[in-house]
Amino acid sequence: MNFKMAESIRMLSKNTVKFIKSLHQKKFRNQEQKFFVEGEKSVVEVLNSDFRLDLLVATDSFFEKYKSLIGKSGVQVILATQNQLETLGQYQSNDSALAVVHMKTNSAFDFPKGNFVIGLDDVRDPGNLGTIIRIADWYGIKNLVFSDQTADFYNPKVIQSSMGSFTRVNFFYADLKAVFKQWNVPVYGAFLNGKNVHQMNQIQEGVILMGNESNGISTELEAVVTDKVTIPGFGEAESLNVAIATAILCDNFKRLLVR
Amino acid sequence: MNFKMAESIRMLSKNTVKFIKSLHQKKFRNQEQKFFVEGEKSVVEVLNSDFRLDLLVATDSFFEKYKSLIGKSGVQVILATQNQLETLGQYQSNDSALAVVHMKTNSAFDFPKGNFVIGLDDVRDPGNLGTIIRIADWYGIKNLVFSDQTADFYNPKVIQSSMGSFTRVNFFYADLKAVFKQWNVPVYGAFLNGKNVHQMNQIQEGVILMGNESNGISTELEAVVTDKVTIPGFGEAESLNVAIATAILCDNFKRLLVR
Repeated sequence: MNFKMAESIRMLSKNTVKFIKSLHQKKFRNQEQKFFVEGEKSVVEVLNSDFRLDLLVATDSFFEKYKSLIGKSGVQVILATQNQLETLGQYQSNDSALAVVHMKTNSAFDFPKGNFVIGLDDVRDPGNLGTIIRIADWYGIKNLVFSDQTADFYNPKVIQSSMGSFTRVNFFYADLKAVFKQWNVPVYGAFLNGKNVHQMNQIQEGVILMGNESNGISTELEAVVTDKVTIPGFGEAESLNVAIATAILCDNFKRLLVR
Repeated sequence: MNFKMAESIRMLSKNTVKFIKSLHQKKFRNQEQKFFVEGEKSVVEVLNSDFRLDLLVATDSFFEKYKSLIGKSGVQVILATQNQLETLGQYQSNDSALAVVHMKTNSAFDFPKGNFVIGLDDVRDPGNLGTIIRIADWYGIKNLVFSDQTADFYNPKVIQSSMGSFTRVNFFYADLKAVFKQWNVPVYGAFLNGKNVHQMNQIQEGVILMGNESNGISTELEAVVTDKVTIPGFGEAESLNVAIATAILCDNFKRLLVR
């Protein structure tokens, strides 16, 4: 352990506990421009990413295991017990670490020519949003755009269910209608009465647009959908979960993409 | 309201509360050979299915709305408030109903020629199992077979996340290795180093085999896998959730199925 690091190790104070607990709420995350990341895999991913860490609460064993990675980051380290960690975050069991991380400035991006963007119209469930981010990362779709009513990207459950993929995507919140009009690319919207995605031909690029868990894509946005697409059903289930449907559309669209 | 029904309406007793709460545990579900179903959609699905109901705890408004369906089933009805319902089950919010239902006898089925069976090797998370049942139902894959360590089909979270699809599938728990040997059909196992499913050709039939959330398919079962298959990744996520992967494989296999 080098001198600089030794200096930066301290114990968990009441104020720090209060501060981290406040980050469960969107209001305080936005005010502080910080969020938190829990668990070994996600904390290691964020240490390896270009996110800037504010502080790291870790058990002795996590600290020993990742000493050099932590040292390189220069982050302030607070040692804590597993019990302490578990009261800070939302994990039922966390024997490794919790990192407080600075948000990045997210600004609108241009449409990535020859690829896809995932658009989400009021996907409210944080678990769904996190799972969709992981799917996007799997399929190399690095750009996502969300309606203002979509779940908060920095919600702890979003971060958790993205399994580290949140470090590798770009996103912004916007009036989707205006964005799609400006981009002027095909908008493939998921509907129950669209074209069977198994019967589609080659695709060049476009937006894969998914709607709200209960109501689907809003009528207002439907007006800018250029192609309604449907996942063929062969049984009796009425619908698929929005994250499942996103995965199936990404898989088909990547298969159909002209390279 | 007819006489028979009026007679069968009663209030929630302490014993009934205790009984329903015991059904949260697998041990008591197996002992009683009963399980419970919560929420409007799922309870309506089970009322419309061939499952036999033991009793129905319902709010006034659910009872009024589905009076004729409930009457047809002949089930004993207990009226309760929303608060009472919420203490019985696991839903945070339940303003409709909870049904106690008799388990069905599940016995091994023959392989359904020309179709698929989903096999699960130690899928432990009840949410994943329920989601997979919903996916199977969407794709018309009515038959599932589970290793003994797979989550319990009648776990309340499985029932909840299947969104009513649990009423429409057949399943049994078994030594998968022995079953697959006996069936003597192709076993398509999901691996990270198998054949790209986008490059596969027509398929006749077979088992779609998915592994445990952390460890994948066990070495023992790997020995009876005839074809290792892989979902192509284009980004940096290390893996996909098992329910997501099941959906993508079902979608590809149904697309490739020779009819």
